Parts: sequence; C-alpha cells; structure tokens
Amino acid sequence: MSGPDRSAPERVHVELGNRSYDILIGHNLINTAAQYVAPLLGRRHVVIVTDANVAKLHLEALEQALKRADIGVDSIILPAGEGTKSFQELERLCGLLLDMKVERTSTLVALGGGVIGDLTGFAASIILRGINFIQVPTTLLAQVDSSVGGKTGINTPQGKNLVGSFYQPRLVLSDTGTLDTLGRRELLSGYAEVAKYGLIDEPDFFSWLETNGIDVIEGDESARRYAIGVSCRAKARIVGADERESGARALLNLGHTFGHALEAECGFSDEMLHGEGVAIGMVMAFDLSATLGLCPPEDAARVQRHLASVGLPTSPLSVQGRIWTAERLIEHMGRDKKVKDGRIGFVLARGIGQTFHPAHVDLSQVTAVLNAAIAA
Amino acid sequence: MSGPDRSAPERVHVELGNRSYDILIGHNLINTAAQYVAPLLGRRHVVIVTDANVAKLHLEALEQALKRADIGVDSIILPAGEGTKSFQELERLCGLLLDMKVERTSTLVALGGGVIGDLTGFAASIILRGINFIQVPTTLLAQVDSSVGGKTGINTPQGKNLVGSFYQPRLVLSDTGTLDTLGRRELLSGYAEVAKYGLIDEPDFFSWLETNGIDVIEGDESARRYAIGVSCRAKARIVGADERESGARALLNLGHTFGHALEAECGFSDEMLHGEGVAIGMVMAFDLSATLGLCPPEDAARVQRHLASVGLPTSPLSVQGRIWTAERLIEHMGRDKKVKDGRIGFVLARGIGQTFHPAHVDLSQVTAVLNAAIAA
Repeated sequence: MSGPDRSAPERVHVELGNRSYDILIGHNLINTAAQYVAPLLGRRHVVIVTDANVAKLHLEALEQALKRADIGVDSIILPAGEGTKSFQELERLCGLLLDMKVERTSTLVALGGGVIGDLTGFAASIILRGINFIQVPTTLLAQVDSSVGGKTGINTPQGKNLVGSFYQPRLVLSDTGTLDTLGRRELLSGYAEVAKYGLIDEPDFFSWLETNGIDVIEGDESARRYAIGVSCRAKARIVGADERESGARALLNLGHTFGHALEAECGFSDEMLHGEGVAIGMVMAFDLSATLGLCPPEDAARVQRHLASVGLPTSPLSVQGRIWTAERLIEHMGRDKKVKDGRIGFVLARGIGQTFHPAHVDLSQVTAVLNAAIAA
Repeated sequence: MSGPDRSAPERVHVELGNRSYDILIGHNLINTAAQYVAPLLGRRHVVIVTDANVAKLHLEALEQALKRADIGVDSIILPAGEGTKSFQELERLCGLLLDMKVERTSTLVALGGGVIGDLTGFAASIILRGINFIQVPTTLLAQVDSSVGGKTGINTPQGKNLVGSFYQPRLVLSDTGTLDTLGRRELLSGYAEVAKYGLIDEPDFFSWLETNGIDVIEGDESARRYAIGVSCRAKARIVGADERESGARALLNLGHTFGHALEAECGFSDEMLHGEGVAIGMVMAFDLSATLGLCPPEDAARVQRHLASVGLPTSPLSVQGRIWTAERLIEHMGRDKKVKDGRIGFVLARGIGQTFHPAHVDLSQVTAVLNAAIAA
C-alpha cells in the first residue's frame, strides 16, 4: 500500500440532530472497517447483508476485517437484482435476522448497491422497531445517492419504493476501490446522479465535471474522491434542510419524474438502468424548461452534450426496439408517490445550477417534449 | 342525548415535540368525529381500516359522520383476530391502499382494537414512507394501552411484535360507548392494563380502583372516563420521558415478561387473552419481588386479591387442561425483544406503585416462582 491508499478518508458529516452521521470516502475502507465500525457498536456483533454478486467480491474482506477486531459476524447473502426489493425478501430477511436472535443493540451492515442498502435499511428500521445499521455502498450510484438521506424501501406491484421508511445509518463507508469492480454501464448510471448535483444548484461543479468527469469514470482516485465528496455534501446539505421531503429535498428528484416513467415502461428491467433514466430525464427536464421559456436553450444543449460525451444515453430512442408513447409515460408519472393532490411533481430549471419546483406544469407541454423525444 | 353524552370529551395531551398529539375520551365521539378529524387532514380524504367484527358495529356510524362533513371516505375491512397482524396482511393492506392511490397527504383511520391499530399504524408508517393516521380504538385495552405511545407492529413465527415501528398518530378518539359492545372477558383483559398503571407508580389510583374498579367494568360512564384518562395520562407521561423505550418506558412492561411467556405457550390463542396474561404476570412479578425480599408479601397479596375480585385470572392454572413447565416459560422469555445482551428484562416492585427495572434477576428465583404458580 502506498500513495493515496494510505491517506485518511474524506469525511462528510450529515447533520440531522440526534440522527447525524458521518460518510467516509476513501480507498481500502473495507479492509480497515473495524476501526470505524467498532466504536459505534452496542453489542459487539454485526450481521452483514449482501447479495450473491457482491459477496464474491467483497464479503470475505469485510468479514475478516471485522473478525480481526473481535467483532462477531454473521452474514446473509440475498439474490442479486431489483427483485430482491420485495415484500417477500423483506419478510425472509426479517425471519433470518430474528432466527439469529438479533437484539436491539445489534447492528446490521448493508454491503452492496442500492438494492441491498434500501432493503437492509428498511429491515433495520422495523426489526424490533429499529436497530442500528451501517452502510458499505459498493456502487457509485449508492455512494452518491441512496447511502445519503435515509430513504429505505421496497417495490410493490404498484411501483418502486412505494413502501419504506426514513431511517438514518450510523455510518457510511464508501470504499472507492469497490468501483473498480463495476461494469462501465453501471458506473455511468451512478455518474448521472453525480452530474445531477451540479445541475441542481452547483454550476461550478458541473463545469468541473465537463472537464474532469471522464477521469471520474476512468478510475482516477482523487477525481473520484472529490466527485463523491461533493455529491454527498450536496445531498447532505439538501437532506439536512428537509429530512422528510416536504420542500427543498424535492430538487433531488431532478430528472426523476421523467426517469422513473421511462424505467417503469421498461418494467424496471436492465433495458434501462436507474441512472440512464435519470440522465434522459434530466435532458427532458431541461428541454421542458427551455420549451416553457424558463431556461436558455444553450443550457439544455450543454446538459445533453456533457451526458452524451461521457457515454450516457440522452434519448429514450437509445433503447433498441421499444415503442414509446407519451400517454403511457404520463400515466406512469401519475402513479409516482411524489404526486400531490393529483398533481405530478416536476423539477424545472432556469439554467444550469438553478433548479426549482414549479407550482404547476401544463401537461400538454410535457406531452410535447415527450413526443419530440420519442419521435424517431 | 342528555347528561354525560353532551359533556366535552376529556383531553389528554401526549407531549412528543413535533409528534405531539391529543387523546380525546368521551361518549359519542364516533358520531361527532368529523369536528376533531377535519382540522388535521391534508387532502380531505381518509381510508378507514377496520375488521369484520368492528365493521358491523361501528363502521357505518364513522363513515357517515365523516361524509356529512364532506370528507371522502374509503374503507378496508380486514379479517378479525391476531392472525391479521402478519406480513401477509400487511402486504395486502399496503397493496389495497396503493391501489386506492393514497397520497402523502392522505390519512388512515384505524377503527378497532389493538390488532387493527398496530397493523394500520405500521402500514401508515411505511406507505410512501409515512402518511398520517388517526386511531379510533374500540376496546378498553386499545384505549388505555396500544393507542398511546406509538408502538406499531406485526407478529412473525419468531414472536409477537418483533417487526414494527415507533409511529405516532395525529389524534386518538376513544369513544367510551364502544366499550358497551365488548364481551366481559375482553373488557376485563383491558382492565388488567388499567390496574397496571396504579401498580407502576400511582398507588392512589390503585386504591381508587380497589373501590371503583368494578364500576369501570360494569359500565359507569364517569368511572370509565376517569380510569381511561388516568391510564392514558400515566402512559403518556412515561412515553414522553422515553419514547423509544431505553429506560423508564420499560416499567410499562410490568407483568409482560411473564405474561408474554404465558401467551406464547398458549400459541397466542384465545386460551389466554393479552390482559389475562398481564394480570397473571403482574401477580407473578409481585410474588417474585416478595420472594426476593424486595416487596412486602401483603402488597403482593393485595394485587392478587384485587385482580381476582373483578374477575381476572391470577394463576396459570385458570387455563383448563394445560400443563405448564417453568423451563418452557423461561425459554419464551429468552426470545422476547426486550432481551438485552442475552438478559431477560423484568420489572419488579418494592410495593404497590413502586416498580423498578432491576439490573439483574437470578433465574433460579424466577423458576421457583413459576414452579409455585403452576403447581396444582
């Protein structure tokens, strides 16, 4: 170990009163996890929850790191994939944890991407009415998004994340080394959320990404640490101001109303990854803002150009062989849990880094933007 | 309507910061519910969740009362009985609510006993990561216990209430008129929890019950209102000091470690109602305290005498045809979620109204008390 591996991890503090916690970002954090985890434990026992894919890559390293510090470790390996975020797997996970006789002072450790983090966090929030949990996110998407802010949940036949809780981890360990094990498409999907923070209210960060984003993707350690740190800090700031999503937090949904609809239409399959939907959705949100005369068309073009330049899709037409209709996409939007008094929630922009939550959006304009986007 | 029916309901304020709420206790509250419910609604739409038995008795009255005030009402009728507090029914309830397109500003109304309140409260806490709910408890047990304090939950094969959340209602409407529809045994089961508050730390209230408890049971309106009010105030005070059960709140478990074990051994069937287990458990807790030389034997005798005088069981032998063993009961206790670092949590007493949470209890003494209680 030499160079950046030995540097202290970057620390982002998420201020939420007595639910505050730290996010540590750095290389080799899984192998050195015990020093950060041990001080937070009640009972000196953790249960690691992970999926079959991540288990092969990182489980033994984490188990060994904790056992070396005399922390008792049990592990539960769930099937990989979005299907695991279900009532059925939640019930099964709770049963396994109760069979292990977890106590209120036990700690769950979520080792994996968003699916594992969301499901494990939800289980932690309801087992014995709430036990501690720690996140060890292993995807870029989880490191910059789902591990910050305390949203947990599962999917139902009615939609994604419609059942869940707000429940904060005690600690997040984001080991940047895990990103080297991701496929390019998965990494890019996480990058869409990184770019989102620049677009929401940090135009300088977006400019930085226009120059350095490709380094983040290609694996430059200091670029990754910086980008993840800025992203977590941005999300922590927004979440800290509005933990339960009544106002400012809604800006984090930039691109998500469109994106979720695209994902839903693909049945949340691998046809469209979450970040791909968000990338296309952000382009649509800026196009809609430009169409409404709110945002300079040049800014909308800049968004599209940067996302495309790193290799993200920016049009629904990037999905091979699928026929889209605006009606169906709007129908999906109407089922989103951000719907309030029957109105769909959009995030619009007056420019890069100048997003806001409009009181009302004319659906005929949304339809026009969708039709333009899906016209071959 | 005349006399007590026209008096304003008694109001108990549960102080929990921004999760504070009021409990209203009085006659005819279901028929006058709209005036209390309407000011708390976001969207002017509620979903009433109830069970088949309660629906026959009270659903139409509540629906009509709300509709008269132009509040939109949907109703969901679940099967009656403890079996409804399951993952399966939780999933089904969430699905029905999502199919009705509930929004974050929608409100659930739990109309029924503890099963309905616990399940509905849990569903409210996880649907869309939390929507408002209101409790309309229709049993004495629910009015004095489960409707105060925000504990929600379901049962699993591993035990009762091992999965759930802390989630506060916005309002509790305790209509004392609903108690007239209860069977004697169910009413007595609730009365055990009323007596518990006197035993925990209100000796004067226990003395009052020794004189007036039978009136509470026989249906005297002012005695009921007083006893429910004192009970709610006692629980609210204890919960307010310790919302998440780390210290003082544990006193509310007086009789429950023994009681839950008795219930568990009966498979949580009608062989032993919750309050019956608590009544026997409180007698055992005082017997154990006396055995340990902590409490005057006269106080233990007084507890037994009062509970028996109103018609509550005070010995496991009251269950016909069941063979008990101390080993199995202690095994059940070891599975309770109040177990901490492998130690079973007991509440003991130095006298009536002088309970405390001991650091350690010698299990051989517990075994001795159990063996004395189950010896024919």
